[in-house]
Amino acid sequence: MDDATLTPPRIIACKRDGGALGSDAIRAFVRGATDGSWPDYQLSALLMAIYLRGMEPEETAALTEAMMHSGVVADLSGVPGRKVDKHSTGGVGDKVSLPLAAIVAACGVPVPMISGRGLGHTGGTLDKLESIPGFRVGLSLEEYRAQVARIGCALIGQTRDLAPADKKLYALRDVTATVECLPLICASIMSKKMAEGIDALVLDVKFGRGAFMKTLPEARALAEAMCAIGAAMAKPTRALLTRMDQPLGRAVGNAVEVAESIACLRGETEGLEDLLELTYALGTEMLLLAGVETEADAARARLVEVVASGAALEKFREIVAAQGGDPRVCEDPVAVLPAARFTGEVRAARAGWVVGVDAMAVALAALRLGAGRTRAEDAVDHAVGFTRLVKVGARVAVGDLLGAVHANDESKLAEARGALARAVEIAEESPSAVPLIVGRAGG
Amino acid sequence: MDDATLTPPRIIACKRDGGALGSDAIRAFVRGATDGSWPDYQLSALLMAIYLRGMEPEETAALTEAMMHSGVVADLSGVPGRKVDKHSTGGVGDKVSLPLAAIVAACGVPVPMISGRGLGHTGGTLDKLESIPGFRVGLSLEEYRAQVARIGCALIGQTRDLAPADKKLYALRDVTATVECLPLICASIMSKKMAEGIDALVLDVKFGRGAFMKTLPEARALAEAMCAIGAAMAKPTRALLTRMDQPLGRAVGNAVEVAESIACLRGETEGLEDLLELTYALGTEMLLLAGVETEADAARARLVEVVASGAALEKFREIVAAQGGDPRVCEDPVAVLPAARFTGEVRAARAGWVVGVDAMAVALAALRLGAGRTRAEDAVDHAVGFTRLVKVGARVAVGDLLGAVHANDESKLAEARGALARAVEIAEESPSAVPLIVGRAGG
Repeated sequence: MDDATLTPPRIIACKRDGGALGSDAIRAFVRGATDGSWPDYQLSALLMAIYLRGMEPEETAALTEAMMHSGVVADLSGVPGRKVDKHSTGGVGDKVSLPLAAIVAACGVPVPMISGRGLGHTGGTLDKLESIPGFRVGLSLEEYRAQVARIGCALIGQTRDLAPADKKLYALRDVTATVECLPLICASIMSKKMAEGIDALVLDVKFGRGAFMKTLPEARALAEAMCAIGAAMAKPTRALLTRMDQPLGRAVGNAVEVAESIACLRGETEGLEDLLELTYALGTEMLLLAGVETEADAARARLVEVVASGAALEKFREIVAAQGGDPRVCEDPVAVLPAARFTGEVRAARAGWVVGVDAMAVALAALRLGAGRTRAEDAVDHAVGFTRLVKVGARVAVGDLLGAVHANDESKLAEARGALARAVEIAEESPSAVPLIVGRAGG
Repeated sequence: MDDATLTPPRIIACKRDGGALGSDAIRAFVRGATDGSWPDYQLSALLMAIYLRGMEPEETAALTEAMMHSGVVADLSGVPGRKVDKHSTGGVGDKVSLPLAAIVAACGVPVPMISGRGLGHTGGTLDKLESIPGFRVGLSLEEYRAQVARIGCALIGQTRDLAPADKKLYALRDVTATVECLPLICASIMSKKMAEGIDALVLDVKFGRGAFMKTLPEARALAEAMCAIGAAMAKPTRALLTRMDQPLGRAVGNAVEVAESIACLRGETEGLEDLLELTYALGTEMLLLAGVETEADAARARLVEVVASGAALEKFREIVAAQGGDPRVCEDPVAVLPAARFTGEVRAARAGWVVGVDAMAVALAALRLGAGRTRAEDAVDHAVGFTRLVKVGARVAVGDLLGAVHANDESKLAEARGALARAVEIAEESPSAVPLIVGRAGG
């Protein structure tokens, strides 16, 4: 289409009829969303047409690029080294970002990480970080840039001026049944990540009952589409496809997940095998993409070494201190982090093998405890959640611990104990072992 | 879907996924459009989903019924006899409503007719009527009802309280590329017609280069869908499928079409063969649907008789007088109707047979003369247009008249003469005769 035909109705009609939109048409749409020159009803008509007609990879890349440039793009070119970030599509107990950012930054790779808040069943990195007293996630882009330059990492929330088109379009998609649309999901995620000023990106694309994508093929399609966008924008992007059926690690909540993250950084391993496996696997990809290692084994050894030496924990302390948080959390998390008023345990009513811990059920129970939010404006209770959760494959006797509940309300405590008891499935036979990381995309 | 799930996003998602909407969901949508409780962006998302997923006949009927009941439904039950109206999908030179309403009403069948204004290439019955000095199309529904009861016919414009959902949805469709959608077109037309208080309906569904539908199959699909809606609502509906390649009759404009209509009612026939053929064919269907005749031949004879006796012209005079117009227009249209300042003729530059008069080209030329409007708020020049247009099949010698132009601006006169000259196609061989009425729907 030439410029004269770039009116909203013509652009909508082109997609309605199954045509591919040129980058000029896509830029007009994104500009219209950003500056308000397209009314909402035209935006939503085009979103529905995109939902039903799809987009070619070139269109999705153009949409991502236009959304990325709808606001400020952080300029980290003054920071030496290749900047690499990690993004997860969202899971339960997924605190990987916390130890991972510190470990990778301790390896000398700058990690500029802009994260989100929890909504619905998934927790948010920002909520977890804010359970550390004093921790500020609301840095300006200038503070963010300066902190990445100085200590190699910053963990902040999305600022208003970053990819504003995504904010606008997501709000409309949310109320017009156009959320679950691959090109729109890809462009939403990738535009925000690309605006961070990164050089490369590692994705953790989850599937299973605790994830947005329920099946591996869906997750693979999303992973491949996002890696293709990264490639089209000359930002090498790799994805791991990971299972999200049971919670990751043994804690679900906010402060409890910070404590577990610190345990990882201190070198503890008991019951943290899945969390560490994923953290090291993602970290390996990050070091390779950053170019500081060329072999996966060497990269992994370097990650393990910075944990063993205490350098990773020290990096985490630096980040916490730089963002106003109480750095003593690294030595004594129990003393520093908020604690819930009531604690209760859940114990096995029968003997056998744990064959399932329903991540979605645990997540919804945590949400009802107050650890998450159902609406964006809800407040979060940082102290509540679950700890010491049993893992799939464990053998239990009657009376063995299945997990602990932390609550600020006795009736909610009782409710959560019941929910956890129902979420743990015990059977006569041991489950067959399934891998946590089942595939990859992006080369 | 049960009531608890009748939220806009769920209704949108149902149609998005290709489901059929229940009548409760459709009523919620139409109510939302009428009272503003659905924001425009949700309405337009659903309109696009309907455009791309279609609607089952039951859904289209439910949509029509909900839109019809979104406002006042005229109650003509106090008027004796079966009330029958005619609706045309729009053509060029299509003044059929004027003579037809008078002729059918003169046969004793009440004709309550609510018409529209011209927009784009098609003229509007209201604009034509308003070229009669004093003629009021803006009757209240009560005046309308009383006039139909008293003289058997009223020719008015859509009032605010008639099918307001259609007004709202049409305005949105117009700017979101969702106009050309069969179920939405059907529901829009039929909801307004059904709100008139009629018992039966005859449709003139046009196809060809001067019509909205370019092909016969498209026109047939529209006709059949509208007849099905009529049947579902127990309002017998029949459609004629008619060709619209050349203008109907010999005049295109407003006052010039009123004059031609009066010529018909006076019994003139020269050059009016196609206009009369269509008028009598539609009138025959109306008399049959009204039940005042059971045989087509008898119905047609009755129509011809009221023209020959002068009763039809007398009925037209009654209607004009009742609505404030100058009834002398029936005796001396030239004296009463507005005349343009400039007139010019177009003559054949070569000898041969007229094989085409491009209705769309003539319509656009009339539009540029000022006879129509490109935006709803534009004013119309009632005096301008074309008369004495040559018809397809005529044999012409060099210098023979192809048509006359009436303009209020000399440069526009010249432009319109050029346009008309280009619109008339003359060839060596006579064209093969094609029927005007090529099919029917609705039994």
